[in-house]
Amino acid sequence: MNAPTAHAHLVPDVHQRTIPAGFIEALQARFGAQCSTALVVREQHGRDESVYQVPPPAAVVFAQSTQDVADAVKLAAQHRMPVIPFGVGSSLEGHLLAVEGGISIDVSRMNSVLAINAEDLTVTVQPGVTRKAVNEAVKSEGLFFPIDPGADASIGGMSATRASGTNAVRYGTMRENVLALEVVTASGEVIRTGTRAKKSSAGYDLTRLMVGSEGTLGVITEVTLKLYPLPEAISAATCSFPSIEAAVRTVIQVIQLGVPIARCELIDHNTVRMVNAHSKLGLREENMLLMEFHGSPASVKEQAETVQEIATEFGGNAFEWATTPEERTRLWTARHNAYFAAIQSKPGCRAISTDTCVPISRLADCLLDSVSEADAAGLPYFLVGHVGDGNFHFGYLIDPDKPEEHTLAEQLNHQLVARALSLEGTCTGEHGVGLHKMDFLLTEAGSGAVDMMRTIKRALDPDNIMNPGKIFSL
Amino acid sequence: MNAPTAHAHLVPDVHQRTIPAGFIEALQARFGAQCSTALVVREQHGRDESVYQVPPPAAVVFAQSTQDVADAVKLAAQHRMPVIPFGVGSSLEGHLLAVEGGISIDVSRMNSVLAINAEDLTVTVQPGVTRKAVNEAVKSEGLFFPIDPGADASIGGMSATRASGTNAVRYGTMRENVLALEVVTASGEVIRTGTRAKKSSAGYDLTRLMVGSEGTLGVITEVTLKLYPLPEAISAATCSFPSIEAAVRTVIQVIQLGVPIARCELIDHNTVRMVNAHSKLGLREENMLLMEFHGSPASVKEQAETVQEIATEFGGNAFEWATTPEERTRLWTARHNAYFAAIQSKPGCRAISTDTCVPISRLADCLLDSVSEADAAGLPYFLVGHVGDGNFHFGYLIDPDKPEEHTLAEQLNHQLVARALSLEGTCTGEHGVGLHKMDFLLTEAGSGAVDMMRTIKRALDPDNIMNPGKIFSL
Repeated sequence: MNAPTAHAHLVPDVHQRTIPAGFIEALQARFGAQCSTALVVREQHGRDESVYQVPPPAAVVFAQSTQDVADAVKLAAQHRMPVIPFGVGSSLEGHLLAVEGGISIDVSRMNSVLAINAEDLTVTVQPGVTRKAVNEAVKSEGLFFPIDPGADASIGGMSATRASGTNAVRYGTMRENVLALEVVTASGEVIRTGTRAKKSSAGYDLTRLMVGSEGTLGVITEVTLKLYPLPEAISAATCSFPSIEAAVRTVIQVIQLGVPIARCELIDHNTVRMVNAHSKLGLREENMLLMEFHGSPASVKEQAETVQEIATEFGGNAFEWATTPEERTRLWTARHNAYFAAIQSKPGCRAISTDTCVPISRLADCLLDSVSEADAAGLPYFLVGHVGDGNFHFGYLIDPDKPEEHTLAEQLNHQLVARALSLEGTCTGEHGVGLHKMDFLLTEAGSGAVDMMRTIKRALDPDNIMNPGKIFSL
Repeated sequence: MNAPTAHAHLVPDVHQRTIPAGFIEALQARFGAQCSTALVVREQHGRDESVYQVPPPAAVVFAQSTQDVADAVKLAAQHRMPVIPFGVGSSLEGHLLAVEGGISIDVSRMNSVLAINAEDLTVTVQPGVTRKAVNEAVKSEGLFFPIDPGADASIGGMSATRASGTNAVRYGTMRENVLALEVVTASGEVIRTGTRAKKSSAGYDLTRLMVGSEGTLGVITEVTLKLYPLPEAISAATCSFPSIEAAVRTVIQVIQLGVPIARCELIDHNTVRMVNAHSKLGLREENMLLMEFHGSPASVKEQAETVQEIATEFGGNAFEWATTPEERTRLWTARHNAYFAAIQSKPGCRAISTDTCVPISRLADCLLDSVSEADAAGLPYFLVGHVGDGNFHFGYLIDPDKPEEHTLAEQLNHQLVARALSLEGTCTGEHGVGLHKMDFLLTEAGSGAVDMMRTIKRALDPDNIMNPGKIFSL
């Protein structure tokens, strides 16, 4: 990687490997129409929601089975060519970009729900199944899968980036909710990383090693997830606050009291305005907490009362309840669309997203100073956060044709990450490292820990073909 | 390792490395009185609660700091001698045995609570702090740490074996409750595996890789744990059942309904008898569930009523409540002492513990057939289980002087593990692999996954000095 400079994040280091003679032909021979070299297909697979521009992969293989993935990886291994797994393309940090060339393995056609074990609260799916599709499949059993990044991401991709979302404050992240995986390794071998037992001490935790490894250690071809019984009662509420600080202080106290709140999201007043415009909602355009409570009717009532009392202490007002499924869906859809609402608020813009996460006691310190900084910088932004987890996202809205805006956004991001790390936090709560946060990771984890990651990578992928150039330089 | 035979588990493969000239002297020069070669000290560190007899390590270093651990590891690395971390010696599967010789690093003097961050619900401790000491330290903050293996184990040891216990059904295991570690690697370098942020997607999950690695990848020198607010209300209950099946069917339904029960333990009628004799309790000598409910007073009442209804359906009777802290402590102390109660029921015996864990829907199938088998075999046993997790332990009580009893116990264990694996379970829910379950791990995980573990081990510990000979053969 380039030495870090003010502009190091603007242009990723691209060294696409030369395509060896016979490689594409071998793929075409094996995969026929499942292999495409059409430019439009390659370009669609060579980008994600990040701002980077990198030439696309040399080919795209549309895998329909674990065997397809294994065969594609074996062909790539023979030719020492990179393999980049692709779900729906919703990653944010450049994970999918072919910085060293190679091929994209699109798993979106591997979209079968393989087994619903309702009695055990587990489901086993292929990696191309999306989070919404999982929920559709298990709904009739009275179950749900809580992890919900903004996009309708694939379960494979969510596993690979250790994703979370609005329900993580109560239900955990992919780290806690993936029970077992099937993985195609760098040599094309198929392994399983666990059983359906709820807990196990059987050797190294390969499941957790793969979760969050961003495709650099293997291609995920099957995922067993934990499910939860649909709560007997659900209630959602919005509450407006006179300041971000008041909202954040409320959240801190709710968490510290151990209220088992299911969702606890901050949306700042600007972003509420963007969301109103995009989703045709009439929310009060003030700093807002959007919350949800799950449990028995009595427990939901009790939780809501506790939170309402705390919010009132901090000047929260206008508690508005959404108890019907339709109202709730409307609110959460609006929350999930905040990113797109923001993008549309400034036509032609791109968003540079931040993703810091700090211990809850440090949340006010981290957030308020960063708001002041962003306001002073004058760049438009959206601000949303899974504040119950200490995780929040600024999205600086930049004009891609103005490098000075990009530089300014990255400066703000740098300052925010430095602040979060000094407060014992992390540079990425849920988006992953990708291309964008390789320097941040080094600062956060230290060279010893990153060297350990490199050592593992080299051992498991000696030819560096699995999504190379991501997480750390080799 | 020996090829598996009927007796393969009875005698571990012992190949103690020759002590190189100058090694012990170098340790003594660095550590003075902190290094002991006295036979009694070495013998105390060369065994655990398993039945194995192996010659002790060559020396014991009593580390008082991370630097001590790093220096001891560096000296061992220079001489290519094994290093075995030692907490309180309560492991069950031969983890601590010096099968390849080397030294024991006793971390019990590293017993400081380094930081209580009550607002963030975290505590950072040295590895020699025991679980009870953690709870003593955080009690006045209104917090607790739920993970409770039977023994008052060290937090370092509990992390290394991915331990759990009676509260795991609600609060998870060490997998879910270790936030970050400081680790001395095989080269003597000190790394940190995480921050205090509640969640993170920053690179490979080294924390979870170390948790459960049984000292084979590094020595844990600091642990940051999650804490929980002491529940506003706690209530414990015992309920007797006409059969194990009735008790198990009750548990399955409680879990499937999503009741957030905090503890849910099965104790079979024989074991209740042993516990009564040991702890001077007057429990009804029938198959029993021992349960605990945490929450607000209303929520605890609601949970208890739901469970009582389900239990009654299955013929459960004599629900007895323990609401005072003293009564509860007495009950749970008795539960935690079940192992010792059983040992004392047959003077001079040792226990061969099983540790299978299966999906909850398979619990009855797995447990009932195994009870029949054990009864038919005629060997005395205790039977307790964290049944809410699908995890249970037989402890076959054998006379160590009668190899035929040992063989019979291992046969029963083999049959039980085979059954659990066929039911999509694991050979070890919480005790770890150690020496005892290396063959089982291979059957459970498959050679591809175990090869991946080996590759990681070889890469991170090229001279194989970190607790060698455990989990898998190299």
